Amino acid sequence: MTYRAPVRDLAFALKHVAGFDRLATAFPEADADTVSAVLEAAGAFASEVLAPLNRGGDLVGAKLENGVVRTAPGFADAYHRFAQDGWTSLAAAPEHGGQGLPKTLEVAVLEMVQAANMAFGLCPMLSLGAIEALTHHGSDRQKSLYLPRLVSGEWTGTMNLTEPQAGSDLGALTTMATPDGNGGYSLSGQKIFITWGDHDAADNILHLVLARTPDAPPGVKGISLFLAPKVLVDEAGGPGAANALRVGGLEHKLGIHGSPTCVMLYEGAKAELVGQLGQGLAHMFTMMNAARLQVGAQGTAIAERAYQQALDFSLERTQGRSAWTGAHPSRLYDHPDIRRTLVLMKAKIEAARGICLSTAVAADLSTHAATEEERATAKLREELLTPIAKAWSTDVGVEVASQGVQVHGGMGFIEETGAAQHYRDARIAPIYEGANGIQAIDLIGRKLPLSEGQAIADLMDDMRDTQEALEAAGGALGGFALRFKAALDAAGSATAWLIERRARAMPDALSGATAYLKLLGDTVGGWMLAKGALAEPEGLRLTLARVYGEAVLASVPGQLAAVTTGAADLEAVTPDMLGAH
Amino acid sequence: MTYRAPVRDLAFALKHVAGFDRLATAFPEADADTVSAVLEAAGAFASEVLAPLNRGGDLVGAKLENGVVRTAPGFADAYHRFAQDGWTSLAAAPEHGGQGLPKTLEVAVLEMVQAANMAFGLCPMLSLGAIEALTHHGSDRQKSLYLPRLVSGEWTGTMNLTEPQAGSDLGALTTMATPDGNGGYSLSGQKIFITWGDHDAADNILHLVLARTPDAPPGVKGISLFLAPKVLVDEAGGPGAANALRVGGLEHKLGIHGSPTCVMLYEGAKAELVGQLGQGLAHMFTMMNAARLQVGAQGTAIAERAYQQALDFSLERTQGRSAWTGAHPSRLYDHPDIRRTLVLMKAKIEAARGICLSTAVAADLSTHAATEEERATAKLREELLTPIAKAWSTDVGVEVASQGVQVHGGMGFIEETGAAQHYRDARIAPIYEGANGIQAIDLIGRKLPLSEGQAIADLMDDMRDTQEALEAAGGALGGFALRFKAALDAAGSATAWLIERRARAMPDALSGATAYLKLLGDTVGGWMLAKGALAEPEGLRLTLARVYGEAVLASVPGQLAAVTTGAADLEAVTPDMLGAH
Repeated sequence: MTYRAPVRDLAFALKHVAGFDRLATAFPEADADTVSAVLEAAGAFASEVLAPLNRGGDLVGAKLENGVVRTAPGFADAYHRFAQDGWTSLAAAPEHGGQGLPKTLEVAVLEMVQAANMAFGLCPMLSLGAIEALTHHGSDRQKSLYLPRLVSGEWTGTMNLTEPQAGSDLGALTTMATPDGNGGYSLSGQKIFITWGDHDAADNILHLVLARTPDAPPGVKGISLFLAPKVLVDEAGGPGAANALRVGGLEHKLGIHGSPTCVMLYEGAKAELVGQLGQGLAHMFTMMNAARLQVGAQGTAIAERAYQQALDFSLERTQGRSAWTGAHPSRLYDHPDIRRTLVLMKAKIEAARGICLSTAVAADLSTHAATEEERATAKLREELLTPIAKAWSTDVGVEVASQGVQVHGGMGFIEETGAAQHYRDARIAPIYEGANGIQAIDLIGRKLPLSEGQAIADLMDDMRDTQEALEAAGGALGGFALRFKAALDAAGSATAWLIERRARAMPDALSGATAYLKLLGDTVGGWMLAKGALAEPEGLRLTLARVYGEAVLASVPGQLAAVTTGAADLEAVTPDMLGAH
Repeated sequence: MTYRAPVRDLAFALKHVAGFDRLATAFPEADADTVSAVLEAAGAFASEVLAPLNRGGDLVGAKLENGVVRTAPGFADAYHRFAQDGWTSLAAAPEHGGQGLPKTLEVAVLEMVQAANMAFGLCPMLSLGAIEALTHHGSDRQKSLYLPRLVSGEWTGTMNLTEPQAGSDLGALTTMATPDGNGGYSLSGQKIFITWGDHDAADNILHLVLARTPDAPPGVKGISLFLAPKVLVDEAGGPGAANALRVGGLEHKLGIHGSPTCVMLYEGAKAELVGQLGQGLAHMFTMMNAARLQVGAQGTAIAERAYQQALDFSLERTQGRSAWTGAHPSRLYDHPDIRRTLVLMKAKIEAARGICLSTAVAADLSTHAATEEERATAKLREELLTPIAKAWSTDVGVEVASQGVQVHGGMGFIEETGAAQHYRDARIAPIYEGANGIQAIDLIGRKLPLSEGQAIADLMDDMRDTQEALEAAGGALGGFALRFKAALDAAGSATAWLIERRARAMPDALSGATAYLKLLGDTVGGWMLAKGALAEPEGLRLTLARVYGEAVLASVPGQLAAVTTGAADLEAVTPDMLGAH
């Protein structure tokens, strides 16, 4: 078994860290037995069906043959089973064929899917984005025609944003949607980096495409959202002619070779408007939070996978003499330096998982809590935590995957071992769905000001409550409580400085954005481990918290300098000084 | 031009950071004009000849065809020119055909070679190890027969240490050297991970091989060093029959595809003893410091290459609105968050370069200083800095290469861009020549106790002198002086704790080894930037020091907790608690 689904850890994180119980009223069917059964079944599917395909997906990859994409060996069959077993419909609304379970549970399930096979997991992840977009902005006709087929997994969805000249800066996009005189549009342009843009695993693909209309204003206000199916369909959903769109090429990527990353060419494709004209970007943002959270969970996932492999290797490989046991040869695991590395990897994974699942609970509460006020409070929390879940967790993914290679020594650099694939696959997650630098700018630019600072104030209050509980518990938790307090104080100072600066000196605030996200993420990660240690104040959870406290939280106050430096000396640095041409 | 040789930065680092002038008496021919001419010529060769082959080396790689290795396109020709132009003989002794220049200059030159084409650079790097071994331990016959041909580059050398069951733990190796009755040996066994173990770029390859003799004691004391040429030679060096050794296979690696990593099979190969029976490991250690330093310089090199590419991209790519200039679209470079990333990358490169070149100057002084006392003091410095140069610089290599991918956004994940190759290539350097964890254990286990702690005490004294000079300079350097002082205090506390613990509780010391190397490396890196800023107390050098001070030095005191944690709670962590099978 190359991947052991961490069902026990996920159940623990849901219950004791993320506050899943708060969803009990809104989702009475998501009781402990159901959650357990879902996690077990999904874990079995991930480890038994998806994980064995992961290396073949990397080696063979998706291929473009005669203009259509052929997925890697076993992927199409696995996708059919995935859909048949109901994994595409977990959190969708019952009126569209969904199971109506919390999105939080879906995040937990998809973490296992991504860990088992990240290239595969992107396919259902993209469909979720399309479901989200149509649920919020689709017409009744679009909902009844498209949603059931996306929810069942019969069809898949894509998101088409990027163009060669328009990456994070979508205002620069030029794809054009021209009214066809019949209430529809004719779509022309080139999109790049389209994940699962074409494949042979489903009957149809619904492309959600950002484009301009003629005479639309320049910049982001001229952008609208369109839907263009790969295969045209009649009003009953029956298949018609191929639409005028095709794959222009597949990218040769560092990792996730099993996920076809397509150049998509729209050549007068039939398309229909989704939502309001000129609201394309706003409509995309609706699904952005969900997608960003899913990518954060990918970071957790790939870290977990890399960690498991490193742990296994450390138990198999013998080398040198253990300073603990005196044994020679000794397992790598019995060398203190290696064991500290493994425990710290595990602690960061638990922290990242806690952040992602907490964000998911906030998202569920933002739509399902009993009162308007609770929903509004939860929405603030979701908005605030999303950039942290995305950026911090994906940075952990890269870091832990790199440490996983390192634990393997020379074997880690050999592709057959598999550790190197995780290192390659992990690297995309800090980039897509808004590069982590964009997340940091989102955090200080849009999230800190939310509700006049209420979102961050609420978060700090909650963390201080936990800190006081740690202090009250005393004993072994006491040392951790002190480190956590110092981190909280630093987070408070950094936040105050940024709020002040962003009002009058934006470059100063922006130059500290990435450092701030790291500082706050490290602190929130510590909060997650604190909650775990409070729930199980001895054994592993305590050790994870302590090791994290020493290796991560203790360095948080020192990060304040990087946040609050300002941009004045940077502004004076010319490319020539840096050695450019 | 895909690589611009940083000749100006190297010259600055030699003069103002590494103390190259201290070599003036011992190497009168290495005057400023010569250094400048050598760096310029090497830089031109690296950027014009080697850099253009780097991508092809990655794409095509070295191939095993009919039992022999064919190097990647252009590599063999480039190697011939490399040798003809004298780049293999720079620091070798004149009596063996060398140019007798300082090893420090060789390190500077090889940094450029490795940056231009890391896979290529490994070939001459391995030959240097063979030259070192034969110079110190070869018989007069071996020296006169082999050294001139290695120095000229006509032949190359390899180091054969690792076996499938013996990586960092060489005591476990089983390759056997049996006396052949004619004063020679017959060598049998399998070695893995043999860099440039076979190729078509030179007439012969001299394999230096660790092996056991019959009846030798178990463990490391039974290991001796042998030389086995690929092609047998007569006493005049003329070629004879092929030796009984062959390539069993090439590894499929994450990176450095242009460097053939061979499984070597010795099948009764004719071999000769090098040095003393049973002293194989000690003889290998002779060249270990030099090799580890070269790998450290590889870390600097790949970071420089990745940084240059990220800088260029940030100047070409436009996106969003600059908070500084208000321009839209703006160069990535004009976004404060991106510019801070680039400047911090540059600062870490300068720190790593300073550490490597300082180590090299100490190595040169350890053999060439005027007095016995100076040589002994320099040797201590070389010994102490070597694990830091190796581990800290290669960690910087991975980190900066990863940031280089990130600056590119989605383009960074596409192999054609080239940023991904650096991320893959960089990953080997923390692993080979002693994994970085081994370096950390070497630092606390063998280097801290050197001369009863004199080595680390001397280093701390020198750093405090620079700190006082910063304080005295005041002005803009004052803030940096305070941060550097706090880091020095933390380094002092960490050192004292480790010296005390290693005497009575080795697991505690070992569990903090990696954290200590990072803490001390961050501090020594700050020292390098401090010396640069003192030499040029305005402009770029000052900014690099300040940015490093805020982003790195300010976090050093917080790392003390990770060093001084002890191993007690780790010892209680069982594999089962961590989720193992």
